[in-house]
Amino acid sequence: MKFTTFLLDGQPRLGLLDGNQVIDLNAAQPQVPADLRAALAQGIDLAAAARAALGSAAPRRALAELTLAPLLPEPGKTVCLGLNYFDHAKEGGREKPEYPWLFLRGKSSLIGHGAPGVRPKVSERFDYEAELAVVIGSRVPRHVSQDAALSHVFGYSVFNDMSVRDYQKRTPQWSIGKNFDATGAFGPVLVSADALPAGAAGLRIQSRLNGQVMQDANTADMIWSVAETIALLSECMTLEPGDVLVMGTPAGVGQARTPPVWMKPGDTIEIEIEGIGTLVNPIRAEA
Amino acid sequence: MKFTTFLLDGQPRLGLLDGNQVIDLNAAQPQVPADLRAALAQGIDLAAAARAALGSAAPRRALAELTLAPLLPEPGKTVCLGLNYFDHAKEGGREKPEYPWLFLRGKSSLIGHGAPGVRPKVSERFDYEAELAVVIGSRVPRHVSQDAALSHVFGYSVFNDMSVRDYQKRTPQWSIGKNFDATGAFGPVLVSADALPAGAAGLRIQSRLNGQVMQDANTADMIWSVAETIALLSECMTLEPGDVLVMGTPAGVGQARTPPVWMKPGDTIEIEIEGIGTLVNPIRAEA
Repeated sequence: MKFTTFLLDGQPRLGLLDGNQVIDLNAAQPQVPADLRAALAQGIDLAAAARAALGSAAPRRALAELTLAPLLPEPGKTVCLGLNYFDHAKEGGREKPEYPWLFLRGKSSLIGHGAPGVRPKVSERFDYEAELAVVIGSRVPRHVSQDAALSHVFGYSVFNDMSVRDYQKRTPQWSIGKNFDATGAFGPVLVSADALPAGAAGLRIQSRLNGQVMQDANTADMIWSVAETIALLSECMTLEPGDVLVMGTPAGVGQARTPPVWMKPGDTIEIEIEGIGTLVNPIRAEA
Repeated sequence: MKFTTFLLDGQPRLGLLDGNQVIDLNAAQPQVPADLRAALAQGIDLAAAARAALGSAAPRRALAELTLAPLLPEPGKTVCLGLNYFDHAKEGGREKPEYPWLFLRGKSSLIGHGAPGVRPKVSERFDYEAELAVVIGSRVPRHVSQDAALSHVFGYSVFNDMSVRDYQKRTPQWSIGKNFDATGAFGPVLVSADALPAGAAGLRIQSRLNGQVMQDANTADMIWSVAETIALLSECMTLEPGDVLVMGTPAGVGQARTPPVWMKPGDTIEIEIEGIGTLVNPIRAEA
């Protein structure tokens, strides 16, 4: 099953995909909260609600006609991995890491599919990063085993971890370069875990800048798989329903090219993951 | 005015202090949401609500009898500064930084006054950090001037940025060592900005471990003042009502001592900031 979050009168609503059509799941199944994190936290059986809605005569609207929000407009934690593909570590001149480089993104950095990624006034070094996003569906016990970890994943989506490179490297802490407004694109759809290979492994992942392929890799190449990442994080923190893991990017980012490639106003950046979807965002300059 | 967040039947409520007594502000002024972030985001006039409640016969309960939650149980962004006191940078063997080292904390790391700080199973290198916390009251325009920055501060509180030092240093990204469950203590009270010096500057800040003074400094010694920090962050991101800035710690942390001092189960750690209050947390081992 595929879910999305769209705006109706400026407010996020949970949508269910029926092919290229979207059912307003909150209208069709009023017990479902409009916020995906709230729905997961309340333990709503979204699969059952989705089956009921798909079997109903609820009105459908074309996905392409909707304005999408970040999949989780009120995210819990958004925990991001750096250097989770060895070829990307190498292109940055680094060894294979022995532990993932982790940072968090805040809500104000997130945008939906179709919304502009904003190149800030203070920097022209605006880069793309194709990444797999993991949405936690149920509370993960501390010190969970890798075998049990994937049972807590609700589904998978696509993330563009757009980065302001000079700010990212201004100090050893990357967080500021990863938290500019409107730089974390998240969507367009969430695919439930049952519809994908375990851990969303083995999926082709690409970025395309103005149609040109910039990154082309496979999620099987991640150093830390989704199960390993959840187990590793559970040594430290409780992952809760609606928390998001952003799984790192493969080689081919703009800063590692000669000469470097930076995204400019007017560009279009697309991230595609096989079996999930394509996340498209135009780039514009900060107003 | 002083506010707090306490638990009633397990749910957070907004409290208003009248001396050492607390008025349930949600009961006394039902238009005020129980969540401080929601109240700020909705533009509720908390000062007016507080004045009305203080002048009323609303029942009072002793602060000491209440179970407190993190001041913002549903925080927006919690943006933390590293190395914001030169003497702390020096004790870590570092130069004076030219830009703050920034990282984010997630909700699952936060606890209230009185709740145990949890030393994790995976590490014994559990350290304290006395810090000033700043609660944003209204949306900060991007590229705000330092002169205008403080008008967006609702108030100030006390934070203990407890750190798992080996995880903090496992990679150059500190975030994981700052996001263990139950390591970010926040409270007990929020003092409205009008009741403190501008930017909460010039206040004595101390940590005490089992009664022994470990850090003893003054918020005037911060490299980046509150106004400078807000202006600097506004170059990158929108600070929203209910976002929190955690302003960094002075010298005297456990890891910089010879031999190092780590917090152990059974210890009590207190952080006091002059004019705001004292945040007390026992330390216990992860279950």
